[in-house]
Amino acid sequence: MEEREHVVGKSVTRVDALEKVTGRAKYTEDLCDKSAYIARVLHADIAHGIVRSVDTSEAQKLSGVVKIVTCFDVPKYYFPTAGHPWSTDPAHQDVKDRLLLTEHVRFYGDDVAAVVAENEVAAAQALRLIKVEYDPLPFVLDVQKAMEEDAPQLHENYPGNVLKHTSIHKGDFEKAKEEPGLIKVEGWYQTPTVQHCHIENFICYAYMEQGRYVIVSSTQIPHICRRVVGQALGIPWGNVRVIKPYIGGGFGNKQDILYEPLCAYLSQTVGGRLVKLDVSREETFVCNRVRHAIRTHLISYVRPNGEIAARKAECFSDQGAYASHGHSIGAKALGSFPQLYPCENFEGDVYTVFTNKPVSGAMRGYGIPQAMFAMESHTDDIAVKLGIPPYEYRWKYLMPKGYTDGFSKNVNYYDTFRECMEKGSVSVDYERKRREYAQQTGDIRKGIGMAAFWYNTGVWPISLETSSCRMVMNQDGSIQVQVGETEIGQGADTAFAQMAAETLGIPFDMVHVMTMQDTDITPFGLGAYASRQTYMAGFSIRQTAELLKSHVLDTAVEMTRQMKENLDIIDGNIVRATDGSVLMSLGELATEKLYSLTNCGHLTAESTYQIKNNAYSFGCTFAEVEVDIPGCRATLTNIVNVHDCGRLINPALAEAQVHGGMSMGIGFGLSEELKFDEKTGKPLNNNLLDYKMATFEDHPDLHGEFVENYEPTSAYGTKALGEPPVCSVAPAIRNAILNATGSGLNELPLNPHRLFAKFREDGLI
Amino acid sequence: MEEREHVVGKSVTRVDALEKVTGRAKYTEDLCDKSAYIARVLHADIAHGIVRSVDTSEAQKLSGVVKIVTCFDVPKYYFPTAGHPWSTDPAHQDVKDRLLLTEHVRFYGDDVAAVVAENEVAAAQALRLIKVEYDPLPFVLDVQKAMEEDAPQLHENYPGNVLKHTSIHKGDFEKAKEEPGLIKVEGWYQTPTVQHCHIENFICYAYMEQGRYVIVSSTQIPHICRRVVGQALGIPWGNVRVIKPYIGGGFGNKQDILYEPLCAYLSQTVGGRLVKLDVSREETFVCNRVRHAIRTHLISYVRPNGEIAARKAECFSDQGAYASHGHSIGAKALGSFPQLYPCENFEGDVYTVFTNKPVSGAMRGYGIPQAMFAMESHTDDIAVKLGIPPYEYRWKYLMPKGYTDGFSKNVNYYDTFRECMEKGSVSVDYERKRREYAQQTGDIRKGIGMAAFWYNTGVWPISLETSSCRMVMNQDGSIQVQVGETEIGQGADTAFAQMAAETLGIPFDMVHVMTMQDTDITPFGLGAYASRQTYMAGFSIRQTAELLKSHVLDTAVEMTRQMKENLDIIDGNIVRATDGSVLMSLGELATEKLYSLTNCGHLTAESTYQIKNNAYSFGCTFAEVEVDIPGCRATLTNIVNVHDCGRLINPALAEAQVHGGMSMGIGFGLSEELKFDEKTGKPLNNNLLDYKMATFEDHPDLHGEFVENYEPTSAYGTKALGEPPVCSVAPAIRNAILNATGSGLNELPLNPHRLFAKFREDGLI
Repeated sequence: MEEREHVVGKSVTRVDALEKVTGRAKYTEDLCDKSAYIARVLHADIAHGIVRSVDTSEAQKLSGVVKIVTCFDVPKYYFPTAGHPWSTDPAHQDVKDRLLLTEHVRFYGDDVAAVVAENEVAAAQALRLIKVEYDPLPFVLDVQKAMEEDAPQLHENYPGNVLKHTSIHKGDFEKAKEEPGLIKVEGWYQTPTVQHCHIENFICYAYMEQGRYVIVSSTQIPHICRRVVGQALGIPWGNVRVIKPYIGGGFGNKQDILYEPLCAYLSQTVGGRLVKLDVSREETFVCNRVRHAIRTHLISYVRPNGEIAARKAECFSDQGAYASHGHSIGAKALGSFPQLYPCENFEGDVYTVFTNKPVSGAMRGYGIPQAMFAMESHTDDIAVKLGIPPYEYRWKYLMPKGYTDGFSKNVNYYDTFRECMEKGSVSVDYERKRREYAQQTGDIRKGIGMAAFWYNTGVWPISLETSSCRMVMNQDGSIQVQVGETEIGQGADTAFAQMAAETLGIPFDMVHVMTMQDTDITPFGLGAYASRQTYMAGFSIRQTAELLKSHVLDTAVEMTRQMKENLDIIDGNIVRATDGSVLMSLGELATEKLYSLTNCGHLTAESTYQIKNNAYSFGCTFAEVEVDIPGCRATLTNIVNVHDCGRLINPALAEAQVHGGMSMGIGFGLSEELKFDEKTGKPLNNNLLDYKMATFEDHPDLHGEFVENYEPTSAYGTKALGEPPVCSVAPAIRNAILNATGSGLNELPLNPHRLFAKFREDGLI
Repeated sequence: MEEREHVVGKSVTRVDALEKVTGRAKYTEDLCDKSAYIARVLHADIAHGIVRSVDTSEAQKLSGVVKIVTCFDVPKYYFPTAGHPWSTDPAHQDVKDRLLLTEHVRFYGDDVAAVVAENEVAAAQALRLIKVEYDPLPFVLDVQKAMEEDAPQLHENYPGNVLKHTSIHKGDFEKAKEEPGLIKVEGWYQTPTVQHCHIENFICYAYMEQGRYVIVSSTQIPHICRRVVGQALGIPWGNVRVIKPYIGGGFGNKQDILYEPLCAYLSQTVGGRLVKLDVSREETFVCNRVRHAIRTHLISYVRPNGEIAARKAECFSDQGAYASHGHSIGAKALGSFPQLYPCENFEGDVYTVFTNKPVSGAMRGYGIPQAMFAMESHTDDIAVKLGIPPYEYRWKYLMPKGYTDGFSKNVNYYDTFRECMEKGSVSVDYERKRREYAQQTGDIRKGIGMAAFWYNTGVWPISLETSSCRMVMNQDGSIQVQVGETEIGQGADTAFAQMAAETLGIPFDMVHVMTMQDTDITPFGLGAYASRQTYMAGFSIRQTAELLKSHVLDTAVEMTRQMKENLDIIDGNIVRATDGSVLMSLGELATEKLYSLTNCGHLTAESTYQIKNNAYSFGCTFAEVEVDIPGCRATLTNIVNVHDCGRLINPALAEAQVHGGMSMGIGFGLSEELKFDEKTGKPLNNNLLDYKMATFEDHPDLHGEFVENYEPTSAYGTKALGEPPVCSVAPAIRNAILNATGSGLNELPLNPHRLFAKFREDGLI
């Protein structure tokens, strides 16, 4: 009796498609009452120093100014901002180094004071009238200079500004590199500071209700936000309520607590009145979070056949001014190397280092795009040096089938890397082109390159992985689904609805996902990060759907006196599985149950599932470029990403995820870089005119392909896809330029400035 | 180990007090986005007729008019409006006699067309430009005339316009009245059409989201509203989502579905855009619901000692134009007589009759204020006729202790009537004053009167009684509570919080009740009516709190390895009950559980409790008046209500309920009456200037007293209090005037017009 239709695996239309294309979907700004007070933050205009005084007297006189608070006024509860689940073990908690406003300014743009005003104009004018006097301190912008002995120190108790030093040592690098006949390949690889550039800037508003703080925020992590606001205000966490409407993207920036605590505090200072705090694009670039710029030094000792006898990696991760996610991103980046190319003798160190720059936090890929740029550039360099085709080199030495990671217990169940590579190379005709392109001369040359990556799914066993789900059945048999995992534009709600429909045996359009989350009532979930959601939420969705199904079938037994074991729900009907006969519709059952004078009940189910699995996701990128050597310009002409993210819940949405990630990877590879003035630490291009974000005008058609290997640990066979698409794009482009020109560029982005320098160095121009 | 503090029984401050006194509480109007389209309804200006045509051409041309729909456009799904739970048995369903707009106009004010406009002005102007042509029909305003053979018929299949005829026959009235020596007492008693006059007029707004209808409404019955909107639009009920914010009173008017279906339909006609439909006070009086005017004919045959040998009751209940709640209100009124004064030979009939007047629906007391006016006036008339003091008469013949009703199975567990009477009579020094006042002469005379009542709690066994509850625990051990029963101003949320805190063993301020209900996620409950909420919700709150407590204690066992049976929660702590030692706070437990790397879980609980009990509430009123005979004016000078509503959850809120009910009873008794023009059927005083609502300027100090007899069937010992305070006020005032003047007035309200007529009839003036 397996004749049911499957919803999982189909490209059903997004549940929010109509709302979004008609402009009717309500985002935070849309929901905020127009009577709200407006809050604005005064940012430091020096890179490092101590606030000596803040004179608000002129600003106070301004009509429309309601309240001004300064760094001297705010409560002194230090709090962390990273969007991690939390742990009751202090050793596993995030670093608490933030206050709502700071007397010790650590970067150009740090938060010194805040204004609450009746309108935008008064708020903006007030900011200009506040006079801050500083005692300036020397500052440092370079990650390695910040480690020097005489460098200015940003935080107490972090000598050399090192927030975290993580080491991985396996075998004996020093001994192994002495093996005779080894070829040494060495390189320094540098990735830039980039920003997420989600379409909706951060915004939140707050008010007090019944003595509690209510915050409506464009956040990826409502339940975590509740906790951090509680910490920041020094109040019981249950006194905070966080509501998350539709979100216009986050990409990890909103996996940090940004201004929610300050906004809540400002509301309190004006008697609990509604206060809105949104940030401009300029502030988004500087006062939110950025991606860690990581400088990586790789030394490999390889045998002539390519075997890696010994490898050493040193990474310097630019944390910026505050801790945020930094400690974990460096570790993740470093940890990727020995799993991508297993090696008996590996020595790795990563230093996450404070500098007087904007705070680095989570961003799509969480260290892996930086690591893959280093490792996959380095891998092509090795292949070139050995005269082994890069594809063949990877085929031989990438993580083999059956590989098991000792820490995460992740297993490479299939030979996925090679399946992905094969699919991609066939798709672009890689090997033929590579050989052909390597023969080119002239000013305009084509090139093709590839790069691979692996990615984890979620954060277990480093941190807690858990998801909870509640389902409520309506009179017509349709259901509402509540989960703590968040729709942030990626289509999560649609995937959740498909999974719920699949397990319950009801049509997709009978599932209504509650997209607006509210920590007061939404079951506890951790939010959108670590490419965890479809995988993690799947566990609790399936478990809760099975629970609800069991309640429904118990009710069907009451009503029909058929054996429960003979009953099933198919296409929204109670079916006797033994002969396929439809006994009643789910709507009839639910209505009768709800209104029964003999045994009434509301059919609901709720459960938590703690996940103690992780899962490897894999993939690779093939990129083609056309390089104008005298023009020092590389144009991307073709790109294919191939992914194994397990079973696809919704192929169309999966492809959309891949396209988005590829776009972000293209910008990372070719154009994006947030720059700072060396003399002042001032950001130079924190706007979308001067910061060269990649848009579809810069893209060729984006091709996403999939290898669907069912993930055995997964509730629905799926695993990470949110972040993977960005991971291998930049090195594939870099390797394509290498193929075209013979020049291997090791510093992103690969813009004309960098091509000019490298081509000149290599004698091409 | 019974040293815990009790929360139930304390006059804690309302959970919404701060929000409401600061004006911060959000009502429907506050929440509606200012961009909403405005809907207005065109009401008929004839009392009865058929719409021949509606010309909207001029209105359509008006700038700002978006859409006009007429009675010829709307879908033909007949739906009921009564706020009853629903039944899957067609015989127990409410009468489906409404359409969104009607071609057959049945009262002056009936709904013929509707306009959607960009603003209020355009909407109002458009209404004036719509031309309706009618084929007028004869109409009837009097309930008994409507039953005559040649009366105009309002609905098909209801001969004599009788919506419902209910009979109660016990013993043999005809035979019993022939007993020799009986004294016959007969009277006709008439109550007026009055309106609820809640401070917040009805308002709702609707929009479409993901193909579903979302309606935010000032309703007492969100879950019932969902069902009716589904019926009215002919769509699956799960495609409707109803949200209920704070409400400024309902008193039963909002226990009917008013314009929610029309508003949802109008939104659909404009592509799902936000449409707001609110009604003016003038419309509230006419186009919402009113209280049934009931004319009652009572004939009693009593023995000289007052024993009732035989009694006959005939009631004519004025339903107005549509069925609404009518069939059940008449039955409830009639059923009160033989239980109040048990009588072996009783014959009763009630006719609920359509007339061409506004629709009668539920209103605080649901037929009992009308019945009590008749019966308690009649009882004083009997006592006077027999020369028995009315107090003594009632003491002897009111429902005795141990009385059990055969239908509801209600038991009078205590001798409550007499306890209440005793308390009240002592409080006002009733008997002495009554005797003294009876001796007065002169123009200005004092009088004192009393009246009693009983009331049911909820609707079992007539209809479904069920409540559901969900509790969610936060990291600090505080909880959210969701129930389907609605806060409508009466303080229900506070009582719910007290009950939850009591059972869970946590401080009151650690309970957060989700006051804004949402049928998508709020557990199924029936809403605010039938004085059911504290009693009915108590079952599911206690059951759910016990469930949650059990989960918490299981967790405490995990963490402490103490015997579950030795553990308890006291004042927010896990306590080992055997020695009283505090093992950990609930906050510590909840935080550890939520973030546990070994066994994480979100502590929640949800359950439905179907209630198959009902409970008698009791009480009486003592009223003192000063009557100016030549001025034909009665002034209320003192009033006391005494209630047994079981254990008081919150004495201050209980007293507030009593005050509110007394105020409504005073208006009903002395001044309120909605009048109609005999020639046209047009309402004459549908505004708060001409309709004489009682306000605190008309009141003496209101005194509420209580007899607390723990209700044995109840989860927290409580029973009905919402409606009881209004039930016995009017007859007590009437009986006070009787005491002062010897004139027994049998038609409410007891305003100067009626006093003039009666005093003249009785020769007093």
